[in-house]
Amino acid sequence: MMSPAIGVFDSGFGGLTVLRALMERLPRARFAFLGDTARLPYGSKSRRTIARYAVQSARFLVREQSAEFLVVACNTASALALDAIQDAVPVPVLGVIEPGAAAAQAASRTGDVLVVATEATVHSQAYTAACRARGLRVLEKACPLLVPLVEEGWTGHPVTAEVIEIYLNELRAEAAARGMNPDTLVLGCTHYPLLRPLFEAAVRPGARVIDSAESVAQVAVQLLHGRAAPAGAGAPPQTEVRCFATDSVEKFERLGSRFLGRPVGHVELIDLGE
Amino acid sequence: MMSPAIGVFDSGFGGLTVLRALMERLPRARFAFLGDTARLPYGSKSRRTIARYAVQSARFLVREQSAEFLVVACNTASALALDAIQDAVPVPVLGVIEPGAAAAQAASRTGDVLVVATEATVHSQAYTAACRARGLRVLEKACPLLVPLVEEGWTGHPVTAEVIEIYLNELRAEAAARGMNPDTLVLGCTHYPLLRPLFEAAVRPGARVIDSAESVAQVAVQLLHGRAAPAGAGAPPQTEVRCFATDSVEKFERLGSRFLGRPVGHVELIDLGE
Repeated sequence: MMSPAIGVFDSGFGGLTVLRALMERLPRARFAFLGDTARLPYGSKSRRTIARYAVQSARFLVREQSAEFLVVACNTASALALDAIQDAVPVPVLGVIEPGAAAAQAASRTGDVLVVATEATVHSQAYTAACRARGLRVLEKACPLLVPLVEEGWTGHPVTAEVIEIYLNELRAEAAARGMNPDTLVLGCTHYPLLRPLFEAAVRPGARVIDSAESVAQVAVQLLHGRAAPAGAGAPPQTEVRCFATDSVEKFERLGSRFLGRPVGHVELIDLGE
Repeated sequence: MMSPAIGVFDSGFGGLTVLRALMERLPRARFAFLGDTARLPYGSKSRRTIARYAVQSARFLVREQSAEFLVVACNTASALALDAIQDAVPVPVLGVIEPGAAAAQAASRTGDVLVVATEATVHSQAYTAACRARGLRVLEKACPLLVPLVEEGWTGHPVTAEVIEIYLNELRAEAAARGMNPDTLVLGCTHYPLLRPLFEAAVRPGARVIDSAESVAQVAVQLLHGRAAPAGAGAPPQTEVRCFATDSVEKFERLGSRFLGRPVGHVELIDLGE
């Protein structure tokens, strides 16, 4: 059985945490990852512009890289452009928001959920909508210092632990003021899986931390059921990965390995136009 | 005497610290400020793209706002596009790099200077070139956490003081390893004037902190000598300021007042094209 080609894209390279989670579960699949680094951050742009950019990226992966399944490893594009992408390509498209909300629903006993994410993702209220549709109460908080801290490499630094503590204290105080009793925290940004140990240490005893990169990989495995051999079966895995970026290839190669958990190797520069 | 119209532009709204310094010295001038927020950050883009964007901004200020003097309150555009801007408009153009380097030369006794800035500014080596041309030895360091800390409003926060201490310790260690004896620190980013008290507290006793927003304002006053009434002379000042942005007007209005030191008021949304 031929393993499917899976296309993964993000506005930057944070989505490599999603690729990593996918590779761990589908070691025989072929992957193409595209970071639209020339046009990041998507978060400050309009829905129409984001949809145009995301459709260009999706078409590149489907047409040029023969992707048969697409994962939108970008919270902003998942929140604002998933329908536009699905309309533009003839393959299944999976975003990061719904799998995170589904995992929160499965994890929470109290039905009260907290979400930490970037300012753009929080502003979109996509997690709030997805969680409410599942009967959960939800409170989101933008944590704009965390992406720069991850990109600075301070993923285990005392300063980062302190910043997370401050953000969570503010979030918990606001949740308490609303009469919520949250027991689940969703990491709603593809950079945050690198901070998972610090988040695990900072939440209340018994609270669950949902890593949306893990959640989306689990759903992808379910959707690809029967088409891709899972980890552990058959011959030793030979994962094939090609990485593409629209700019800043050097930074991608330098920082990307932290997100991917192994060297990203050569990153190919492509031009998607304006 | 009619005061001149002064145009100030930046890729974001950090350049409002430069506008603030200009307004304090030229309270009778008319100002137009443009933040090209739709296309920030300039730092990750090519020289050609940055020049195209900066020329569009410059032309808007000269043609639409009748600016007779332009201040490029953006380190990246000053480093990479000052000649292109000067070629494109028929009015004097002043960037932020040269005034900062000149002030460092005037302040330093040892001739050894440290510069803190964003990654893009450091990568451009513009301060290194400008300082070396003045016979100074110079060491630059990118401090990518500081802009997010300022934008989060943590300008006097213990976490920010700790981050500054860490950055300066690394910078001083590298300077010592090179046999340098620095006595002057240039704040080479328009966000950093808001951190000046923390920097002043973190440098060695006797060391000088150069605020490039102040430096560029001083040079502008010299260049405008005789054309703009300085502070303190004649009738009470009535500074006229109009602010424009290409996106994110709400964020500009909300955060801009911290940089300007007074409410920015209404920010007008304009479209400069692609």
